[in-house]
Amino acid sequence: MAGIPASTASLRAANTRRVLEALRRGPASQADLARRTGLSPATVSAIVRTLTAAGSVQVSVATSNGRRANRVRLGGGPLAAGIDVDHRHLRVVVGTSGGSGGPVLAERAVRLATDLTAAAGLDTAIRLLDDALTSINASRDELAAVAVGLPAPVDLRTGLVGSSSILPAWVGVRAEDALRERLDLPVVVDNDSNLGALGEMTWGASVGRRDSAYIKASTGIGAGLVIAGELFRGRAGTAGEIGHTTIDENGPICRCGNRGCLEMLAGVPILLRLLEQAYGRPMTLPAAISRARAGDAGCARVLADAGRHIGVAIANLANLLNPEVIVVGGELVEAGDMLLDPMRTVLRRYAIPSAASTAEVVPAALGERAEALGALALALDKAEHLTYEG
Amino acid sequence: MAGIPASTASLRAANTRRVLEALRRGPASQADLARRTGLSPATVSAIVRTLTAAGSVQVSVATSNGRRANRVRLGGGPLAAGIDVDHRHLRVVVGTSGGSGGPVLAERAVRLATDLTAAAGLDTAIRLLDDALTSINASRDELAAVAVGLPAPVDLRTGLVGSSSILPAWVGVRAEDALRERLDLPVVVDNDSNLGALGEMTWGASVGRRDSAYIKASTGIGAGLVIAGELFRGRAGTAGEIGHTTIDENGPICRCGNRGCLEMLAGVPILLRLLEQAYGRPMTLPAAISRARAGDAGCARVLADAGRHIGVAIANLANLLNPEVIVVGGELVEAGDMLLDPMRTVLRRYAIPSAASTAEVVPAALGERAEALGALALALDKAEHLTYEG
Repeated sequence: MAGIPASTASLRAANTRRVLEALRRGPASQADLARRTGLSPATVSAIVRTLTAAGSVQVSVATSNGRRANRVRLGGGPLAAGIDVDHRHLRVVVGTSGGSGGPVLAERAVRLATDLTAAAGLDTAIRLLDDALTSINASRDELAAVAVGLPAPVDLRTGLVGSSSILPAWVGVRAEDALRERLDLPVVVDNDSNLGALGEMTWGASVGRRDSAYIKASTGIGAGLVIAGELFRGRAGTAGEIGHTTIDENGPICRCGNRGCLEMLAGVPILLRLLEQAYGRPMTLPAAISRARAGDAGCARVLADAGRHIGVAIANLANLLNPEVIVVGGELVEAGDMLLDPMRTVLRRYAIPSAASTAEVVPAALGERAEALGALALALDKAEHLTYEG
Repeated sequence: MAGIPASTASLRAANTRRVLEALRRGPASQADLARRTGLSPATVSAIVRTLTAAGSVQVSVATSNGRRANRVRLGGGPLAAGIDVDHRHLRVVVGTSGGSGGPVLAERAVRLATDLTAAAGLDTAIRLLDDALTSINASRDELAAVAVGLPAPVDLRTGLVGSSSILPAWVGVRAEDALRERLDLPVVVDNDSNLGALGEMTWGASVGRRDSAYIKASTGIGAGLVIAGELFRGRAGTAGEIGHTTIDENGPICRCGNRGCLEMLAGVPILLRLLEQAYGRPMTLPAAISRARAGDAGCARVLADAGRHIGVAIANLANLLNPEVIVVGGELVEAGDMLLDPMRTVLRRYAIPSAASTAEVVPAALGERAEALGALALALDKAEHLTYEG
């Protein structure tokens, strides 16, 4: 019940955002927009009129098969930035909902050898952001909003990382406040898997799906949940913590303080440690994946076992939530079906039949950019919120 | 996005149902109704006018502390029935949203020694229903709708039980069609835990809570999920299958075909089998609970271990969904804190701190009637749907 807008004004605002979200996938006729959003043609028409008057969309008339059809495209929308902070990389994208060649205007990424402190992470992010802005002759004060993803649960009630041990470098840091002070811009912070889910539902593998899950399989393992077409964050804002699903009650101690968590069985550092033990020297994940592809049984087994363990957790998730599609992202998905086939097998074996048969398991369409693009989508959403709801 | 009503007409219908739901908790002033529903006073006033004209509510004016205040109550709403079919009992409630002493007008229940076949289950349900109707001088043709709960996943796409092995007696039976044919009335069928969740959110421990879970701990173990104030059923309609969470990958084979499911560690028949082994003779659950209460260490341990196992599953659920409250029902909750305290301990230990600190664990306020009352709530909802949306 609380999901239903309480007044016509907020209904109108919500519908306006739906139309803008639909247009972010590309230009469309008003009839297409009605189909994409489920809104009535009359509602779409009224919203397009308002948006045209505000300069947010442009309507052109094209002739196709001798018939005239209008075509609505985003026009000169606000500029926003998405930032993805991961243990092993940092990525910044700058974009607008008005771009004709897709949303991204500039993009910068760096690989990291070790976790950065919060201060160093913010410094690096701002440096990349300025660099990206410069490349398109833009400046910070043209940005309408910035969104940042962190690889940890973010307690939306406090703005703090929701566990003192999952991302120690950021404990006690209100990333939102810290970045807002330094940039003097509206800032939102969210969990990186939530943003991966948002990226894939906006431009990727789960576009148009009502209930879906996004799994980020990387150093940590997290899930972003989409329920009834909306990102679901839970009461504390930390929903989707699939990496701390207990797989083995007596398993190894996890950094979260529990035992036998999924991350301790399928997180990338654990897999690399197993391979180092077996091969007598350190190995990177890309090296392990190409060896597995070339027929190395040990590397293939480690990837397959990781898929099996994640499969147990997604079977429980499927039993609980019945998603239509489970999108797998994060660096581990570079292993492709060597990872996904064991996941699918375990899902079919461990989930009840109606749940298993509903849930398709597919790789992220946006690859390792899913989280940063999701951050851009969130920032554009924030910018539209500020514009259309005050 | 799909959760947002697409037109003003459906918004109005949804708001009307919210007002009726709020009134089902008891008579209220229009100001109270606005608070209970989150709707504006003007919207509430317009809806009350329409409902008064339709004869669905009655408005009286009372004087309190020298001030006149209106008082809205349900008046002569439709009659509906809720039926809860369990492995060990069958319960029928007949009620109306217009009752001044609560919704239930008549109630009948029987205990069962063994599972009934689908045909025998339907026969018994109809006999109890007729009996209950006779006791209030009513007949079947006065019923606007009937809802039935089954202790199995119900695939809402097919109307069939969503697993061929969880409730074998009902496989291939379209309970909805079978009952509709025999009663010639609108019928809806749902999973019993979903109905327990609906009962508790309408009249019980989770009234007014946005995100909650209801756990039915009985022969099987199921969960009903409430997300953003709405019952969440998932794509297949079989969400909440917590009983088939894998707790031990190498554990005992379960009737669902997997191993080490929660039900195989904490379902009532398993607990009774453990006690029979230990004490050398069969024991009922009520007997085990009273022995535990009197200090019997073996009985107390079996109940506490069941609580611990359910605790692992609800910790995973809390990590995934961050509910505000977890309501525990089913016959096992008669053990009270002997069951719930170990659940709370394990929840705090296994869930990440932000999820654990959000989720309160409480016993069902409606006890073993939660599922039948939830079925009544669903039937009343169906009846209102038929009345106000055609």
